[in-house]
Amino acid sequence: MKRKPIFPEFPHMLHGGDYNPDQWQHDPHVLEEDMRLFKLAGCNEMSLGIFAWAALEPREGEFDFTFMDRAMDDIYKAGGRVILATPSAARPIWLAKKYPEVLRCNDHFERNLFGRRHNHCYTSPIYREKVAIINRKLAERYKDHPALLGWHVSNEYNGRCWCPLCQEAFREYLKNKYQTLDALNRAWWSAFWSHTYTDWSQIDPPSPRGEMAVHGLTLEWKRFCSHQTVDFLKSEIAVLKEVCPDKPVTTNLMAFHDDIDYHELSRVLDFVSYDIYPPWRGADKHDIPLAKTIALYYDHHRSMLHQPFILMECTPSTQNWRPFNKLKAPGFHMLASMQAVAHGSDSVLYFQFRKSRGSSEKFHGAVIDHEGSENTRVFREVKELGERLKGLDALVGTYTKSEVALVYDWSNRWMLEASEGFQNRDKKLHDTVLSFYGALWDRGINTDIIGYDDDFSRYKLLIAPMLYSMSEEVGKKFEKFVAEGGHLLATYTTAMVNETDLCYLGGLPGAGLRRVFGIWNEEIDTLYPDETCPVRFADGEKAEAVDYCEHIHSEGAEVLAYYDDHFYAGTPAATRNSYGKGEATYIAFRDTGSAGERLLEEQLNRAGVRRLWDTPLPYGVTVHSRYDEDTEYLFLQNFSYGENTVETAMDLSDLETGEKLTGKIRLAPMETRICVLKH
Amino acid sequence: MKRKPIFPEFPHMLHGGDYNPDQWQHDPHVLEEDMRLFKLAGCNEMSLGIFAWAALEPREGEFDFTFMDRAMDDIYKAGGRVILATPSAARPIWLAKKYPEVLRCNDHFERNLFGRRHNHCYTSPIYREKVAIINRKLAERYKDHPALLGWHVSNEYNGRCWCPLCQEAFREYLKNKYQTLDALNRAWWSAFWSHTYTDWSQIDPPSPRGEMAVHGLTLEWKRFCSHQTVDFLKSEIAVLKEVCPDKPVTTNLMAFHDDIDYHELSRVLDFVSYDIYPPWRGADKHDIPLAKTIALYYDHHRSMLHQPFILMECTPSTQNWRPFNKLKAPGFHMLASMQAVAHGSDSVLYFQFRKSRGSSEKFHGAVIDHEGSENTRVFREVKELGERLKGLDALVGTYTKSEVALVYDWSNRWMLEASEGFQNRDKKLHDTVLSFYGALWDRGINTDIIGYDDDFSRYKLLIAPMLYSMSEEVGKKFEKFVAEGGHLLATYTTAMVNETDLCYLGGLPGAGLRRVFGIWNEEIDTLYPDETCPVRFADGEKAEAVDYCEHIHSEGAEVLAYYDDHFYAGTPAATRNSYGKGEATYIAFRDTGSAGERLLEEQLNRAGVRRLWDTPLPYGVTVHSRYDEDTEYLFLQNFSYGENTVETAMDLSDLETGEKLTGKIRLAPMETRICVLKH
Amino acid sequence: MKRKPIFPEFPHMLHGGDYNPDQWQHDPHVLEEDMRLFKLAGCNEMSLGIFAWAALEPREGEFDFTFMDRAMDDIYKAGGRVILATPSAARPIWLAKKYPEVLRCNDHFERNLFGRRHNHCYTSPIYREKVAIINRKLAERYKDHPALLGWHVSNEYNGRCWCPLCQEAFREYLKNKYQTLDALNRAWWSAFWSHTYTDWSQIDPPSPRGEMAVHGLTLEWKRFCSHQTVDFLKSEIAVLKEVCPDKPVTTNLMAFHDDIDYHELSRVLDFVSYDIYPPWRGADKHDIPLAKTIALYYDHHRSMLHQPFILMECTPSTQNWRPFNKLKAPGFHMLASMQAVAHGSDSVLYFQFRKSRGSSEKFHGAVIDHEGSENTRVFREVKELGERLKGLDALVGTYTKSEVALVYDWSNRWMLEASEGFQNRDKKLHDTVLSFYGALWDRGINTDIIGYDDDFSRYKLLIAPMLYSMSEEVGKKFEKFVAEGGHLLATYTTAMVNETDLCYLGGLPGAGLRRVFGIWNEEIDTLYPDETCPVRFADGEKAEAVDYCEHIHSEGAEVLAYYDDHFYAGTPAATRNSYGKGEATYIAFRDTGSAGERLLEEQLNRAGVRRLWDTPLPYGVTVHSRYDEDTEYLFLQNFSYGENTVETAMDLSDLETGEKLTGKIRLAPMETRICVLKH
Repeated sequence: MKRKPIFPEFPHMLHGGDYNPDQWQHDPHVLEEDMRLFKLAGCNEMSLGIFAWAALEPREGEFDFTFMDRAMDDIYKAGGRVILATPSAARPIWLAKKYPEVLRCNDHFERNLFGRRHNHCYTSPIYREKVAIINRKLAERYKDHPALLGWHVSNEYNGRCWCPLCQEAFREYLKNKYQTLDALNRAWWSAFWSHTYTDWSQIDPPSPRGEMAVHGLTLEWKRFCSHQTVDFLKSEIAVLKEVCPDKPVTTNLMAFHDDIDYHELSRVLDFVSYDIYPPWRGADKHDIPLAKTIALYYDHHRSMLHQPFILMECTPSTQNWRPFNKLKAPGFHMLASMQAVAHGSDSVLYFQFRKSRGSSEKFHGAVIDHEGSENTRVFREVKELGERLKGLDALVGTYTKSEVALVYDWSNRWMLEASEGFQNRDKKLHDTVLSFYGALWDRGINTDIIGYDDDFSRYKLLIAPMLYSMSEEVGKKFEKFVAEGGHLLATYTTAMVNETDLCYLGGLPGAGLRRVFGIWNEEIDTLYPDETCPVRFADGEKAEAVDYCEHIHSEGAEVLAYYDDHFYAGTPAATRNSYGKGEATYIAFRDTGSAGERLLEEQLNRAGVRRLWDTPLPYGVTVHSRYDEDTEYLFLQNFSYGENTVETAMDLSDLETGEKLTGKIRLAPMETRICVLKH
Repeated sequence: MKRKPIFPEFPHMLHGGDYNPDQWQHDPHVLEEDMRLFKLAGCNEMSLGIFAWAALEPREGEFDFTFMDRAMDDIYKAGGRVILATPSAARPIWLAKKYPEVLRCNDHFERNLFGRRHNHCYTSPIYREKVAIINRKLAERYKDHPALLGWHVSNEYNGRCWCPLCQEAFREYLKNKYQTLDALNRAWWSAFWSHTYTDWSQIDPPSPRGEMAVHGLTLEWKRFCSHQTVDFLKSEIAVLKEVCPDKPVTTNLMAFHDDIDYHELSRVLDFVSYDIYPPWRGADKHDIPLAKTIALYYDHHRSMLHQPFILMECTPSTQNWRPFNKLKAPGFHMLASMQAVAHGSDSVLYFQFRKSRGSSEKFHGAVIDHEGSENTRVFREVKELGERLKGLDALVGTYTKSEVALVYDWSNRWMLEASEGFQNRDKKLHDTVLSFYGALWDRGINTDIIGYDDDFSRYKLLIAPMLYSMSEEVGKKFEKFVAEGGHLLATYTTAMVNETDLCYLGGLPGAGLRRVFGIWNEEIDTLYPDETCPVRFADGEKAEAVDYCEHIHSEGAEVLAYYDDHFYAGTPAATRNSYGKGEATYIAFRDTGSAGERLLEEQLNRAGVRRLWDTPLPYGVTVHSRYDEDTEYLFLQNFSYGENTVETAMDLSDLETGEKLTGKIRLAPMETRICVLKH
Repeated sequence: MKRKPIFPEFPHMLHGGDYNPDQWQHDPHVLEEDMRLFKLAGCNEMSLGIFAWAALEPREGEFDFTFMDRAMDDIYKAGGRVILATPSAARPIWLAKKYPEVLRCNDHFERNLFGRRHNHCYTSPIYREKVAIINRKLAERYKDHPALLGWHVSNEYNGRCWCPLCQEAFREYLKNKYQTLDALNRAWWSAFWSHTYTDWSQIDPPSPRGEMAVHGLTLEWKRFCSHQTVDFLKSEIAVLKEVCPDKPVTTNLMAFHDDIDYHELSRVLDFVSYDIYPPWRGADKHDIPLAKTIALYYDHHRSMLHQPFILMECTPSTQNWRPFNKLKAPGFHMLASMQAVAHGSDSVLYFQFRKSRGSSEKFHGAVIDHEGSENTRVFREVKELGERLKGLDALVGTYTKSEVALVYDWSNRWMLEASEGFQNRDKKLHDTVLSFYGALWDRGINTDIIGYDDDFSRYKLLIAPMLYSMSEEVGKKFEKFVAEGGHLLATYTTAMVNETDLCYLGGLPGAGLRRVFGIWNEEIDTLYPDETCPVRFADGEKAEAVDYCEHIHSEGAEVLAYYDDHFYAGTPAATRNSYGKGEATYIAFRDTGSAGERLLEEQLNRAGVRRLWDTPLPYGVTVHSRYDEDTEYLFLQNFSYGENTVETAMDLSDLETGEKLTGKIRLAPMETRICVLKH
């Protein structure tokens, strides 16, 4: 299961982060201190040049690489390497003032003023040209620099632009996709409320000033904006690859960001990188559930390219932009960093190395505080982590084997959010995803997060939470998966609409899945936040439905649970159907956890999914693993601020101490142990 | 009391609803199924052509009536009739793109983009012209079609437009009304904050970008927008009447909609129709109070023209656009439909007959589900109702006799909402209206909801909730009503300002009512939401004031209750005054129900108002009646999800079963019985 | 300590208020009644001409002073005097329509429409010119009128304008201040996110359409807008002084208004005046805390010029624009009015004398109600106060001696609000200020509220709440104050940034105060609203931290209290350091009151601050004093709605009754006694 390291010439766990010496050119002492403290902290990487365009090209066509030349050399001399950024995430003022088209228009079709980051049109030919020029300069200047590891393209792509150029590109995108207006009108059901388009030029993007209710339009606009961002990214990469074809490229992603279909985007990267800022609160009741969410995000980023990823940004101490910004308890930075590694990261990198002295993020945590020395608590914790990471180089490139996958699709999410029906406050897709993921985390089960275009056959069990929208083709893919022996666990709102948000006719679930699940979903009842509906399992166990209660009929499926109130009392609430060589379970109601967990547990057992640990884990403790041929590294992590004890009959040893581990193992608060298991 | 039926040539209870075959032209099988299911469901009416403009006139001046020709014929062949819509509620895109003036401007004076429904300027000459053309085409084509019953003009008129054309029309409206700027400045008290107008052209409509605090301006703008909408409606009707003068016209209304003075609007209709979508929740504690609100709305629509109305839209199952959209319990659709009939509806019509496959309302309930067959719960309930309605043709045209009326005025509402004083979160006009109406509902008393221009002399008791604004003339009308023997029950904030929102001088209540009530209202104290003030009746009964406590003085009135705290402890809280041959009760405080109910009960008795039922009704049960000469039809309805029993000494029979009804009568959950009483 | 009276020719306590006869010119009877009731109410002042521009100049260049001539004469004849307003706070419509530049642009750079008050550009040359013309006319016409006391310039200056003229003036302001773009870029740390300015023309003010995150920019924009308002005020004053140099000028201020640095503004006034509208609620639990806030505001206005101020506006009964507008209990108006006098006001003036009949404030309390007579409760209370004030002329000009000052700085507040860090919902500067002030109020201690440019050496104890931002120079001033024997009490977030919001390097507190406090503030932890952290004093007393817990280290300071939980358990939470001849206490955590109060109490004792009363005061009772050479007037006020008793060994007499006051003194609900103490 081992993958080739991302940077074969530097096969180390990376430790370091964003470095912005352009802010400190007036103070050479600071720059010297940076290098002393870089080494002292056990760092080996700097991410350079993010937001440095104004420094690199202070006037149009005038370039100044002084600060970057020095930084590249200094870092290399200090034993470090550089991931070099393209500066496109923030443009110099002169560029925006001279070429207003580079700035975005908002959803009222008004041009933004200069300001912020991420305020540029992805379509603008001028912006693309200016970015290509500076990118080429950077690539040509540093392509042979020994410090250069790879490319950090732009920064945290996000946002949408409603400018005339984007509008025109949107119309072209639609023409390519639908070919005829008839096809488009049919797909969007635009006859409703007399919205039939009779000329391509009539199509405006959704706007609060105009149309927000044609769901097909909203969907395609989100798809287009995502597509256009990826297209821009490709144009950035093209220049870099042309000049230095061997250096891997990435851009830093952000969990399940709404703006971009990361499944589409990741396909153009050499490796995935990730920025993460969890609001840890210093108490088990907050941080253990949060640890599950974060684990889900890590697994998602690892699954995109099915290889290790780079943790590109995190904070060594606190954020500054949340409503409340807390300090991490001593030891927690170690735990959180090791969690990233456990889930497939080959790095722990920070934003940023030295705190900025002014502007909006001046209070964001950093390795070096405004105080300036190594005598801070945070610096000491960073240094301790640096020392530990040096011992983990063997893990670089090791990968994860998952028998379970959760299926997630961006178009499904966009349609679900845009849909008007059942309840309109929050459809709770992510809550549903998380409730299943959390149960897997509690059980110590490696999980992949995959898209509709992934290979389903790799897995024993697929979890399909709220897959409201799928095409007939995806329906067939699920059908084939089950028919060939796979286990499928799906929920309320499955397959209600097709890929352009048209409802399936002939009874739900659509896309051919009515047969696969052996049920008909006739109606969906919505519960108010203060309402519940009792549910009873066949063996008498009770549960409680919230939010959604579908009124379904078994058409051959075994009924696992029944509603116990409302007019649908006595009708099925959960079913399981044998189909071909496999099984399909349908959960018709949302619950607050226990019922879904019970049904998942049963399905895990029926599918024969392996738990990584051979005994039940206490609350707050989890295990995830990475593989290297016949060696498995089990990361045993205690996310509690209290001690915990686990037991095992496996024959394990501690990777870092060599200690033999078996029987009862005591875990200190926030402790991570890496256990070696030979297969 | 019987009225001529709305459609004398088709004197049946109508059952059916909005039908949009223009969305399904690509699938002839669907169109055939529609007719089969129309008959099967016991339907006899379709509302055709709402939002069909894009289908009827796909390009400017190119008309295509194919789908409508077929639908008219098919429906007629299936034994049905058609209420035909004018398509003005949504315009085709080509129209908006070619003539931008047809789109509205928002309150920032910005032109909307194409999108949504109800996005057109009511002033635009081009829009009026284009609407007139398509309306004339429709009228000419179908005027002699045997299926045509009448006209459904546009759809749910609402909204306001701030475009230059509307602004200019507003100025003309003001010139006509005030004649001189002096008169206007005086009426609006514009000297305050130096807002004196010295030229008509200086008058801009209220806008967040400009002026929101000149109450006279705000009031007249709302009056103008309402007036202009009615003017547009009149222009639509004119064409229809010119071509087919005999067909009655309506437009579908929406309860107490803020945008339009329905008293003014209803004057131009042949009959009133109503769209209603209550958020029934399936539990007595929510649905019984809600049933009272809905009953109020029905009574209001019946009272506008004092004749039966058409329930033009409701859903047979669920809405899709509320925050939470619940299914109706089995049987509830029957109850809710019979409630409409009880209050004067001669129909039960739906939006819509077949669920749209896409766009924003695709999950809105309909007679035919996406599933497509008659095998759904909803279809079965619709069919059951259809069968019952066939037995109620005798009720068509029967009317209601009310001895009590609630007085409601749109200008009063607009001024109260715009006013700044006492409390500014929610003046609670509608809560106050509802608290009196609910007490009447509990007692089984027919009630009319009337305006200032209605005939007061028809009633024994007038309830005047929060009539903050009235002219001297209206004051005189109330004075005359009481002087001649009428009973008047009024509340806090009565007659504070005149018809342009100028405060009455010389002590409140103004408009001459200080003498009628025999009190002086010196000050009004506002209570915070967490505050109450105890109140004590003369006989020691206690109550609790909330929101408003007026500090009043008796000037001859009998004091019925006193405040028991605050600095106004011991001063009057409610009074009754004999004036001429009548009585006027004043309630100076808001309470949460009991005190107002007690005072109402006393006044009902003193006025000799008849209860329809001869014994008290249990909670959740009510009676309303319709008359046909010497026959009264008492609708006895149980709005509870549990059983109830009522008792009577009257000699009744069941209209539908012929069963004799007297003594104890058991009502099943959600049951409606129609009891015949001969006078 | 006595100051020269503001109006030496009329050395009386002023009683009266805003008078707007321009609204009533159509009704001479009203104008006559006004004068009758003016005298009857014991009034001696009217504030005339506020918002009267439309009446004074109905058309450009056409002036009409009829109403004002009459009012000036009538008031004088009635024994009264006039403070005459310039009308610039609201412009006539003709002016706005003809010269659109006089209207403001909002923060989206969009021009407002005519409307509201305070909707004019402070930069517009045309507006300045037109204001100068009308001001000169007024000054010339009335400069010798015997009724004229002084000038009320404009009204409640506030707001900001983003128009092109203001933008250009902003750039000029920056050029003058920073001289070079290099200096500006460095000060604003604009290299962050590539915001480096390379031309002055690139600088746009902060806007939601553009930049909101460059804190230096936000800060300077707020400073500029304040500066420009003061500049406008100066231009108004210049004309007045030119024509009638001897009449004192003021403008009415509003507590700690965010828009304008009142320390800067007050420097150009002859006297300070203040408008106050507290939401009194009629219950001790609301009104006693509120009384402390109001006392703080009064002390603040008195401290600006260190002389008595004029209470320019208050309501005799209720406001109309709050969410809930309550009546004042009988007697409360007396109490609240005497509070103003206790804190240094030489007047009680109202908005307004007669209630407007229409428009937005028609329900605002006034001396004369719409009812129109003297027979209202409110009129009687006003009259009672008028009679009492006549006996207090001896107090005119007497002043206050304070040994304690609270330090408050507008730039600090702006920076703290703009800053992103720790917690971002509400930094709670004002809560912190208030918690210390409230403890001083409870103890009966005169307090000044001063700025960074005030003379520190006047005080024994300085309280420095959340002085997040200060320059090195201010730091030195504090250092000198302590070194020379002063006592300094400071809190969390002290001296984190300099005067352009750049963080201090080298360890906090910055600005040289690390040595003064003898601590290093390493980190700041933020608590969520549902979190607390226990704190323990050296003697075992317990407290509870909320919001902020700084993780500090003693570097010589005595530790007064320790944290008792979190990872910083056992580290210092409060410290005291001897420095030079003085002491500096640092409170590293926010608490809900008790801990801060204890530390304040200790420091008051150590500094030898005198309590005005010689025994502890019961809850709700306070004492503040004014001095006249060797006589001190102690205002003993009971803010409770119940009775209270105080005790004293001082030898006092009642100013108004002559009664000897010593031993137990009983205070009726809401009673104020003015006790004479001879020194």
